[in-house]
Amino acid sequence: MTTRDSRERTVRSAALLFRERGVDATGMRQIVEHAQTPRGSLQHHFPGGKEQLIVEAVDWIAGKAAEPLEASLEADPPPAPRQVVAELFDRFRTLLTMTDYRAGCPIAAAVVDAGSAGDAVARATAHAFRRWTGPLERALARGGMEQARASRVALLVISAVEGALIMSRARHDMEPLDAVATEIDLLLSTS
Amino acid sequence: MTTRDSRERTVRSAALLFRERGVDATGMRQIVEHAQTPRGSLQHHFPGGKEQLIVEAVDWIAGKAAEPLEASLEADPPPAPRQVVAELFDRFRTLLTMTDYRAGCPIAAAVVDAGSAGDAVARATAHAFRRWTGPLERALARGGMEQARASRVALLVISAVEGALIMSRARHDMEPLDAVATEIDLLLSTS
Repeated sequence: MTTRDSRERTVRSAALLFRERGVDATGMRQIVEHAQTPRGSLQHHFPGGKEQLIVEAVDWIAGKAAEPLEASLEADPPPAPRQVVAELFDRFRTLLTMTDYRAGCPIAAAVVDAGSAGDAVARATAHAFRRWTGPLERALARGGMEQARASRVALLVISAVEGALIMSRARHDMEPLDAVATEIDLLLSTS
Repeated sequence: MTTRDSRERTVRSAALLFRERGVDATGMRQIVEHAQTPRGSLQHHFPGGKEQLIVEAVDWIAGKAAEPLEASLEADPPPAPRQVVAELFDRFRTLLTMTDYRAGCPIAAAVVDAGSAGDAVARATAHAFRRWTGPLERALARGGMEQARASRVALLVISAVEGALIMSRARHDMEPLDAVATEIDLLLSTS
């Protein structure tokens, strides 16, 4: 295993554990075991300890989730905003199905458990959400929506996804996520 | 302090701490200190330990938040659904302002940190969300919305509030909650 592999595996394992168990309940030892990385690599790559790992896990998942949104902005011809948003909901629907409703969003977990975390985590979570709302806002504006409204609707879409993930996990059924997807689609089709 | 006082204070303290620090990071000792209840009362009132306390804190906050929604159904004349929803957003806006964006929703915290919790917590969180969507759905239907749609819109409103709370806490500004409130109001005024 290369140094880089072991670093990336650790960040990925942290994100996966945070989104199922929450940030506070996930110990450094569990992360190392999940990542199957060599002892000592944690100290080497993450001298800032758990806080550094939370920040990097939040950055990593934000990038992963932003990728398809950014790609849709590059596509030629660009997909309709409704399609971009529908695909966003589909990815979260798949996540819930594949994990039997155990997994949520590690960024939300970092916010909810942030009471004991430092400013770096707060900055990382704020930045992470902007990486999602930014391309979504541009896609909506390009689709003809007035700029101020596109900004509001992007915030609504991401808020609704985050909240619906929590409600669907709590209820162990897809109804909240499906209901929100239907209503947001209706909103986009009539705007 | 009566026995009943000490029981209620403990549940309330648990809910307040959970919503700021998350469920896992909040220890039993912190709850007792916050509640300023006598030693030994915890064991007496909550033989089920932390899990029982999580369940009761979730029930308590769900009831508190459901009260104004249920009251609006009893009012004569009934307020317009837009007003019921606007007041819901106002209460969360006040919560964020009063706590300088530290407090979120303890039910969301219980879901996010549920990985290590038992079925009783899962049932309590699912039930808690239904106590909010139920009266909201009835208010929307009474306002003239078709029943299936009222059910979806109630889920959208609560999802959007929950997600916007998380985003506003992360960003330490009101823009997500304000944007969502504006868009939901627009949706209700054109439905």
